[in-house]
Amino acid sequence: MRITLIGSGNVATHLGAAFTNAGHSIMQVYSPTLQNAVLLAYHVKAAATDNLSDISADTDMFVIAIKDDAIAETAAKLAPHNKLIVHTSGATGLDVLLSRSPKAGVFYPLQTFSKTREVKFTDVPVCIEGADENIHAVLTELAQSVSNKVYRVNSEQRKILHLAAVFACNFPNYLYNVASQLLAEHGMGFDVIRPLINETAQKVQENIPASVQTGPAVRNDEKTMQGHLHLLAHQPQLQQIYQLLSQGIIKMDKIG
Amino acid sequence: MRITLIGSGNVATHLGAAFTNAGHSIMQVYSPTLQNAVLLAYHVKAAATDNLSDISADTDMFVIAIKDDAIAETAAKLAPHNKLIVHTSGATGLDVLLSRSPKAGVFYPLQTFSKTREVKFTDVPVCIEGADENIHAVLTELAQSVSNKVYRVNSEQRKILHLAAVFACNFPNYLYNVASQLLAEHGMGFDVIRPLINETAQKVQENIPASVQTGPAVRNDEKTMQGHLHLLAHQPQLQQIYQLLSQGIIKMDKIG
Repeated sequence: MRITLIGSGNVATHLGAAFTNAGHSIMQVYSPTLQNAVLLAYHVKAAATDNLSDISADTDMFVIAIKDDAIAETAAKLAPHNKLIVHTSGATGLDVLLSRSPKAGVFYPLQTFSKTREVKFTDVPVCIEGADENIHAVLTELAQSVSNKVYRVNSEQRKILHLAAVFACNFPNYLYNVASQLLAEHGMGFDVIRPLINETAQKVQENIPASVQTGPAVRNDEKTMQGHLHLLAHQPQLQQIYQLLSQGIIKMDKIG
Repeated sequence: MRITLIGSGNVATHLGAAFTNAGHSIMQVYSPTLQNAVLLAYHVKAAATDNLSDISADTDMFVIAIKDDAIAETAAKLAPHNKLIVHTSGATGLDVLLSRSPKAGVFYPLQTFSKTREVKFTDVPVCIEGADENIHAVLTELAQSVSNKVYRVNSEQRKILHLAAVFACNFPNYLYNVASQLLAEHGMGFDVIRPLINETAQKVQENIPASVQTGPAVRNDEKTMQGHLHLLAHQPQLQQIYQLLSQGIIKMDKIG
């Protein structure tokens, strides 16, 4: 397919590479910051622009990969055309594009991307939604050309998926940071705990989390939990987090 | 070394295998449940017993790998001898053994173990503490025979390490479970989010967590956070967790 990328951030960068590797052509890359557009355009052998009115309709699809609250506005600024427009946002409904064009869809790669870190895109789950069955079919084919994990997810489900991703990615990373700080405060490096973090994530690749829960809360080991709360005496916010998550574990369904 | 294992749970099982693989001899395995002692003893080619008074002093070291609140009592029940005694607990000081014998130490493998899951023990951080420099040297040599990651950690640091492990392992696993439940409630399987969990843990193997934090909270994206809280309207406990962790992220030191 001929694809125009609106955006040059983490998602646009990884999508651009994945599309190019799969044999698709990137036509243009837009970013309000020209140097970002130029850099990504260089990698995907496309033209760069920082002006939305320079975006050509000579393409098969527009992929809007920019921050959520700018999607509707940016889509509205594209010159009239009858091409497919998709966004890549987890938290945004299909409706923000439908007001612009009936040929709308969503192409949401469920992964945490950094520009500097390679991701094996064939393993990235791609969640697609199309305004109609035709669009769904086009997006399925496109998604399958870059990933082995293609899911059909409607707008309501995608919002839940985005929320679940916050619990499964953003919050655990914050807790890794808490661990890192606690270690640093007592003269220890983060290295000592990295293998544990890795193994914890590896365990749930083959098991469901409830079946591999460990720690004092799941054993209802009051003495250890009291000891931990005591160690956090000067960090009331961490105490609160400790108590709330421990209560959640104590109440969780252990059936697995 | 000739090693006697007091305990037959996850830690004793993995330690027994690691010691045996490194060429050490397991002399006896004790468990209050004979069938557990027999099973582990079979794997490590040792004798089994469910009676502490059957434990022989013909060994170089006793490794007590049982639940924390039984360590002191069990150590006290071993017949008089002048052999090294160590425990494997993160949350327990060296002092509980020192009252039994001056030849005391700690051999704490910082990993989450399940009996049914293989762990590459050479990658497991082993945190050791000895009552004196001699014991420290013996334990260092033993630890280095089974792991490439040996750390000297005193009792105070080890308690912090155990607390940090709750934040880095037990709490993230609980949050994976929350994600799994949210997905299930909306007709989606856990598979779609497994690659994200894996990548989140992989990222901090080479980076520090603060430098790879993503999500609405670190962007201070109020609209998305409000949307998420709205989706959790019927789960006030999850709302509270969402708010508390988001506040933590908003306040976290982004310097990386």
